[in-house]
Amino acid sequence: MKTAVIGLGLIGGSLLRALAAEGHDLTGFDADPATRELARAGGYRVADSVAEAIQDVEVTALAVPLPVLPKVLAELAGHDGLVTDVTSVKGPVRDLMVAHGVRRFVGGHPMAGKEISGFAAADPDLFAGCAWVLCLEPHDTDLDDWMTLARLFTAMGSRVVPVTASEHDTAVARISHVPHLFAATLARQLAGDPLAGALAAGSFRDGTRVAGTRAEMIAAMCGGNAEAVRTELRSLIGFLGELDALLASDDPVGAVIPPLHAAGELRRSWPPAPGEPEKMRVSIPALLELGRAGGWVTSVDHDEVVVLRPQGDRKPA
Amino acid sequence: MKTAVIGLGLIGGSLLRALAAEGHDLTGFDADPATRELARAGGYRVADSVAEAIQDVEVTALAVPLPVLPKVLAELAGHDGLVTDVTSVKGPVRDLMVAHGVRRFVGGHPMAGKEISGFAAADPDLFAGCAWVLCLEPHDTDLDDWMTLARLFTAMGSRVVPVTASEHDTAVARISHVPHLFAATLARQLAGDPLAGALAAGSFRDGTRVAGTRAEMIAAMCGGNAEAVRTELRSLIGFLGELDALLASDDPVGAVIPPLHAAGELRRSWPPAPGEPEKMRVSIPALLELGRAGGWVTSVDHDEVVVLRPQGDRKPA
Repeated sequence: MKTAVIGLGLIGGSLLRALAAEGHDLTGFDADPATRELARAGGYRVADSVAEAIQDVEVTALAVPLPVLPKVLAELAGHDGLVTDVTSVKGPVRDLMVAHGVRRFVGGHPMAGKEISGFAAADPDLFAGCAWVLCLEPHDTDLDDWMTLARLFTAMGSRVVPVTASEHDTAVARISHVPHLFAATLARQLAGDPLAGALAAGSFRDGTRVAGTRAEMIAAMCGGNAEAVRTELRSLIGFLGELDALLASDDPVGAVIPPLHAAGELRRSWPPAPGEPEKMRVSIPALLELGRAGGWVTSVDHDEVVVLRPQGDRKPA
Repeated sequence: MKTAVIGLGLIGGSLLRALAAEGHDLTGFDADPATRELARAGGYRVADSVAEAIQDVEVTALAVPLPVLPKVLAELAGHDGLVTDVTSVKGPVRDLMVAHGVRRFVGGHPMAGKEISGFAAADPDLFAGCAWVLCLEPHDTDLDDWMTLARLFTAMGSRVVPVTASEHDTAVARISHVPHLFAATLARQLAGDPLAGALAAGSFRDGTRVAGTRAEMIAAMCGGNAEAVRTELRSLIGFLGELDALLASDDPVGAVIPPLHAAGELRRSWPPAPGEPEKMRVSIPALLELGRAGGWVTSVDHDEVVVLRPQGDRKPA
């Protein structure tokens, strides 16, 4: 398939390498001339402009940071190929696509990353086994376009998860954006307290690991998804307040056991083991039900997909 | 040195093995007959009661959970040897010792653990390189007793950190107890949201790891140190509220960069690299200054110790 990748950082570069390994006809582009040279030196065809990169292309993957998207979308004006993206927030990106008149758009988000960035860190195996969200809107998405991308990404070994943009934004606020803010909040306690730094061990190390991510990157994720992040954040602040109240009770040890036990059960049963592969005839409602149930698509064959669901989850009759 | 270890779970069992490896004259005891048999089968001398275990012993290490301590202390009545413990809260334990008339007490807390427990999991190398808090109170601790224990634990490879009970309780609330509550709070988000479970990746995995610890154990740590934990928890809730307010501003991305950047700097410079070893003549004020500066004792020689401090920290003139 004739494909263009715009933006050749860690994610875009890895996508270029992974698609090349699948034998697709590829063109890359990056705004940075040095990155273009690096990609050319790696044997890839690299255009000198967005317009040149997307000429006669069936699928264009935009792998640029959210703040750069409007500029790239202006250069896509009039393009009638299928467009996808890889940013960590999907509602605002969908609004941008509508505003820029991009008609054939399916939002994507691979749940993969590294603490290092740039084309030099790109890895064709980055997406093997990772969840790749592909957005579906009940009255809005062209199912054939969705299937085209699902075929492309499952072939690279990704688990393709069908969800609406809004469901995606809430879920990632929960499992990625707020955890980054929690890590930063814990790390901050080291300020002016070298004793704490000397005593900190495993629980601190793991609980703060992602606080070391570039501040601009965490800010772009959380600020770009501010509404969903604030809703989750306030809910978690409420629960921390409940723990504080329980610790003020006559029997603080006994009082906090039940909520800690419930949280422990949830953690110990994650990640859920998948059940047996099932064949499913595709429709937007069936795919959205699959995503909501914690399932994903593992391969695509015409109008059928093979799916996995968490063990014990039963397909609705 | 004639030493007794009371309680042969993960920590007590590991201590028994580590002290045995150093050639000490050891007796163990555990309230559970099966654990006593297991330890005997491992070649250790195991008494059938606390009283028998501590007969003519110079140092007794209490490695039982906090709720069990009062029962063991009742059996120590009249004992005049040196007593230490390994529980994760030091102020309340100090009060217990006073209440039970234990005169020669130096509180301890090795910052080591595993997610598994029991004598079978005990490991003589568990304490190598770990921070082992040994409490010192300005007008209260016998420095010779403190040095006896510092010699014992540094010989096992531990980094001995001198602090007051109250400083310890604040520091562990920060770097261990509250991180456990944060992990549980994040893990709880999986309830009723299988999609979140399917998308969760590295930041969630690490941020929630310790939520899988036994609820009774987290509750004992946090509930036993409720006052310090509540103070820290409310401070962190305040900071999360500030982040929420910044995310509500006109430029949420720009607004959260400075606090995230500060937290990231703190995390990236942790753990601090130690400077060159220094010899130090011991006194309670000098040791407490060392602990507050994030330093520790690495070996003991008569009335001198060898210490390490974080690189760049200067010894006061």
